[in-house]
Amino acid sequence: MSTDADAQRKQEVASRNGDDWGECQPASMAPGYSGLEAREYRPGSRPGAGYVRRVRDPKAEFRFVEEGVLEATTEANAARSGVAKVVGGIKRVLIGQPLASSQAIHERLTKIKALAVLSSDALSSVAYATEETLLVLILAGTAALAFSLQIAAAIVALMIIVGFSYRQTIKAYPKGGGSYIVTKDNLGTLPGLLAGASLLIDYVLTVAVSVSAGVAAITSAQQELQPYTVEIGVFFIAFITIANLRGIRESGNIFAVPTYVFILSMYAMIVVGFAKLFTVGIHPVTETSVPPAVETLTIFLILRAFASGCSAMTGVEAISDGVPAFKEPQAPNARTTLLWMVGILATMFAGITLLSHFLGILPEDPASPGYETVLSLIAKDVFGTGFMYYLIQAATALILVLAANTSFSDFPRLSYFLARDGFMPHQYAHRGERLAYSTGIITLGLLSGILLWVFDAQTDALIPLYAVGVFSAFTLSQSSMVRRWLTRKEPGWQTSWVINAVGACATGLVLVVIIATKFMFGAWIVCLLIPIIIAMFLTIHRHYNQVQGELEGETPLSPAVIKHTIIVPVASLNRATIATLAYARSITPNVTAVHIAEDEESARSFREEWQAWGDRVPLVTIESPFRSVINPLLRYIDNIDRADPNDTITVILPEYVAAHWWEHLLHNQTALRLKAALLFRPGIVVTSVPYHSSRTPAAKPA
Amino acid sequence: MSTDADAQRKQEVASRNGDDWGECQPASMAPGYSGLEAREYRPGSRPGAGYVRRVRDPKAEFRFVEEGVLEATTEANAARSGVAKVVGGIKRVLIGQPLASSQAIHERLTKIKALAVLSSDALSSVAYATEETLLVLILAGTAALAFSLQIAAAIVALMIIVGFSYRQTIKAYPKGGGSYIVTKDNLGTLPGLLAGASLLIDYVLTVAVSVSAGVAAITSAQQELQPYTVEIGVFFIAFITIANLRGIRESGNIFAVPTYVFILSMYAMIVVGFAKLFTVGIHPVTETSVPPAVETLTIFLILRAFASGCSAMTGVEAISDGVPAFKEPQAPNARTTLLWMVGILATMFAGITLLSHFLGILPEDPASPGYETVLSLIAKDVFGTGFMYYLIQAATALILVLAANTSFSDFPRLSYFLARDGFMPHQYAHRGERLAYSTGIITLGLLSGILLWVFDAQTDALIPLYAVGVFSAFTLSQSSMVRRWLTRKEPGWQTSWVINAVGACATGLVLVVIIATKFMFGAWIVCLLIPIIIAMFLTIHRHYNQVQGELEGETPLSPAVIKHTIIVPVASLNRATIATLAYARSITPNVTAVHIAEDEESARSFREEWQAWGDRVPLVTIESPFRSVINPLLRYIDNIDRADPNDTITVILPEYVAAHWWEHLLHNQTALRLKAALLFRPGIVVTSVPYHSSRTPAAKPA
Repeated sequence: MSTDADAQRKQEVASRNGDDWGECQPASMAPGYSGLEAREYRPGSRPGAGYVRRVRDPKAEFRFVEEGVLEATTEANAARSGVAKVVGGIKRVLIGQPLASSQAIHERLTKIKALAVLSSDALSSVAYATEETLLVLILAGTAALAFSLQIAAAIVALMIIVGFSYRQTIKAYPKGGGSYIVTKDNLGTLPGLLAGASLLIDYVLTVAVSVSAGVAAITSAQQELQPYTVEIGVFFIAFITIANLRGIRESGNIFAVPTYVFILSMYAMIVVGFAKLFTVGIHPVTETSVPPAVETLTIFLILRAFASGCSAMTGVEAISDGVPAFKEPQAPNARTTLLWMVGILATMFAGITLLSHFLGILPEDPASPGYETVLSLIAKDVFGTGFMYYLIQAATALILVLAANTSFSDFPRLSYFLARDGFMPHQYAHRGERLAYSTGIITLGLLSGILLWVFDAQTDALIPLYAVGVFSAFTLSQSSMVRRWLTRKEPGWQTSWVINAVGACATGLVLVVIIATKFMFGAWIVCLLIPIIIAMFLTIHRHYNQVQGELEGETPLSPAVIKHTIIVPVASLNRATIATLAYARSITPNVTAVHIAEDEESARSFREEWQAWGDRVPLVTIESPFRSVINPLLRYIDNIDRADPNDTITVILPEYVAAHWWEHLLHNQTALRLKAALLFRPGIVVTSVPYHSSRTPAAKPA
Repeated sequence: MSTDADAQRKQEVASRNGDDWGECQPASMAPGYSGLEAREYRPGSRPGAGYVRRVRDPKAEFRFVEEGVLEATTEANAARSGVAKVVGGIKRVLIGQPLASSQAIHERLTKIKALAVLSSDALSSVAYATEETLLVLILAGTAALAFSLQIAAAIVALMIIVGFSYRQTIKAYPKGGGSYIVTKDNLGTLPGLLAGASLLIDYVLTVAVSVSAGVAAITSAQQELQPYTVEIGVFFIAFITIANLRGIRESGNIFAVPTYVFILSMYAMIVVGFAKLFTVGIHPVTETSVPPAVETLTIFLILRAFASGCSAMTGVEAISDGVPAFKEPQAPNARTTLLWMVGILATMFAGITLLSHFLGILPEDPASPGYETVLSLIAKDVFGTGFMYYLIQAATALILVLAANTSFSDFPRLSYFLARDGFMPHQYAHRGERLAYSTGIITLGLLSGILLWVFDAQTDALIPLYAVGVFSAFTLSQSSMVRRWLTRKEPGWQTSWVINAVGACATGLVLVVIIATKFMFGAWIVCLLIPIIIAMFLTIHRHYNQVQGELEGETPLSPAVIKHTIIVPVASLNRATIATLAYARSITPNVTAVHIAEDEESARSFREEWQAWGDRVPLVTIESPFRSVINPLLRYIDNIDRADPNDTITVILPEYVAAHWWEHLLHNQTALRLKAALLFRPGIVVTSVPYHSSRTPAAKPA
């Protein structure tokens, strides 16, 4: 009884699926050639795909795993065609041999190394943050520069608030809480996308700003390189892009040296600077002309200077994003490291601002010839132009390039999350040959390169665009945490809640200040871009969802219901055409050849040729007085489709297989244009039957 | 008996063709929709393609002509897709509605109109020929300018020799004897191609030189336009290109006015100039600084000046190319017109050179600001800056643009001949929507535009490249005529032979002078290009011949010998994949699905999904540890091909049909790359099964 029921159920499933697939025969492989042995095919048996048995050849392209499962070896990965080989060769030189998925390495970082890897972005921003504050204040004359002290105090306070706030995030998200994920989790998709869009923009800006500032550190020390500012910047970006395509790990060792050299040299400069100031005194080495005041000192100007200085805050969130990279116990280690980082960042920033104040440093116009950064001026005053000066400039340039490199991990990772959730093209979720998310890396390299080029590699021109995204993400992420504590009420939520609320309010307020003061100077670009990017995310999401819905339909699909109608466009009657017609005829007797003729005369002569050949396939000749081929053919196909809407129409085209790329230009033009037109025409199957020397497939002897 | 023999012969033919095509059924059309009525299909009958009977709908896309023959109406020509409609709309605005083949117009020209149409190139060259001579001579100081008289005398003599020589060509080739055809006829293919390559280059140069000189005529009169020289030149070329794509006829009326205005105003200037010179005298209006001599006066310099002046000779061959455009009696009319033209050309050139000599005109550096042409200087001296001066400048600019336009008939026509003979891509032999040879026109427009841009629209920079091609063609064409008279010995051959021999020797000698004196100054580019172009011709010819030979093979081709093996790459199991598999299964049971998995884990989970679906088609899973899809798939296909070399392998891919262009970026990436890779892989049939909303073809209910 149960077998009967079984059979009946099978029958039902079969009919729902529109069965009638019958027996299928698998393709077989040549014995002994590729190290795969063909399994004998016994008609009537159901062999599945298991026709490969064992490895015989060390140069085999496939390794036998089990019945029906092969593993591709590096041999199978090798390109064979000329063009592909050249492209492959260039790729090997630039990014190296492909890596297998199993070769992915996950380094666990100690706190010392994690500080180096995760804080280069945050720490490096002291290289330009003081200067950007001063550049705004000096618009109101040198007297206004004194306000830099109050501004620095406010920023240091903000750093401490945000630092403590992110310590709460680490507690709640020990697996890493990027703003996109945290916001999407707690506030919903749209705020999550807002955070995502803000961060994508800011990662691009981080690269452009850091590289510009790094180049400025170099040109300050080597004035003769100044005319090549943009070229050096583009070179750095290209270098970082290729390095990331190679898949450099965020290796603690690579990052540790420059980061700690930078930290130590900054502290050395601050300590030696103050020691000299209060003992022997310092005589400024460089003379700078005092620029005239061009604006009056208003609250707005001071707030604008504060907003510019807030660029020092970028990258503070990196540690809370990167918790999984820490050694166990991960969360406590990360929280400690975050404390360290905020401490170092705050003291360095405060020290540099104080020094510049007591030294009476005047910021130079970055567009002027002989421009030097404020940091370079301070270092010269403190150390003169000796070894320490060049060490500081080199370490500054290096840590800024490392900071740009941080974005090259963050941008592709965020793109991956967005692509995984269907908000960005799927390509962003695929790992490239070297296990890196190549599409994201290339996108970031191109966008930041273009940005650097458009803004002439001038840090101060980029700063008004900067920080809008960072503070949006800060505010959203911390508001999310507030919401989370309130809904979950986990033990100890009250303290965390207060800290995050203070953080959210503070960063939200700063965001308003930043947008208000920088809007006219460039922030409007970002404010315009964010909604555009979110709209793009949503459009892509809707599209993928729609396709997914269509693909999951329950319509029965079965070979038995397919009724073939085949149309073969023929330009002339030759071996390739006949082979194509034979191929068509071997599928169904329902084949029509269509010939487009320029005029009556040529239509008649083609028909005569056709009859002489034997009139084996019905021919329709279409006289096209305007000599166009594509549109009359498409209209004819439409008519056939309307005549039998239930038929499956296949258009079969002979296609020349070129031995050399240039031969393509001499053939296939009409076939290619027809294929392009049919690509946008739903419901028509398009088949290309290749022809080339004696290899026309239908011409093989039986 | 005879019926038996007949049957046997039929049998033989059938077996040689590898028969077994069986009965074929034609596609049918929906009755009443498109004005075409479906003919009932009776199984067992052999209906041919005659299923359309009569027109019913005035908006029909096809008109019924006879059994199996349709004529496409303008309706069938209309684009349907969005992109195609936009492109079509732009085309309509720029080049107008398509013209039917029957709308081709062949105007027959009177001698008066023919002179205007065919001699604008030759006559317009007097606008720059004198100046180019003077520009070389002045390198040796103002005293050297006197040699311009002897040089002009030599060039006038040459004009007369060449003119009489071409009169012989017209006699022998009353249907039009272009240098390519005449040379190929009499000296063989390679010299013919040499003439062809030379002429193609010279047509490009004619456009660049004439337009540059035309712009110089305008900027001489309107100095403030000088900074826009290149822009104006490119605009002219774009204008002429579009006008020719529209298919302007070489209408006598359009050409007659500017040509005769130019001729009359030149004669007026010469006559008034000499009258004033010998009566009231002329005081130069413009002051030009005397440039210092930078070279010594050598024979070489004089020959170089002569070579530059020979640019006056370009276009002399036009009348003998265009004999079929004349009214009957064609050859005599053409010969008379040629005499007129040479007479006008020689007197104008001599007159202008003499005037410039007696007025003591010093040529200005064309690269200097405020540059004026020699013709402009003469006209100002003779007429002042009144109406006549502006008339002369306008007529000069206009006839120079018309001269450029002449190349837009010559270049496409020569390309057509070369394409017809298989030396250039076939596209050059196809007439576009407006009956013009669009590919040739666009090629000429692009090449001459680039040339003009590279050479900054400076006539004197282009001149060293010019005339090499013209004199090569002259020499070859006239040598061909010598050969022809000697072999055919038609009545009166002796006189013709002598005239052509003198012409060939003279032009050959000038060619040597031109190459020798101009080689260093730019002619080397042309001397390098000509063999490259000839090599290109020969490569293309060899390729077409080879393909032709392959296509004409006698291998039996028959549906019966085709044994199908189908491979369906599947990324996931969804409606589109199942529809594709069903389509494959409907062709043959010999279907294998191939899945490329990133790792063991995903390979296993896919196989489980496959078995849950019912395991209807044998599945091969390939684990690709390097995550590449294309190469392992290609290698797998290679293996299958080697295993059964006699099978016809078809790779069937599901392909997403996008409703919007940007959706393409979100899909098909792997399918497209696989198709591109298979395009260069002979012997594999590639089929795309489209999927899109509910229109997946195999999903239609039976």
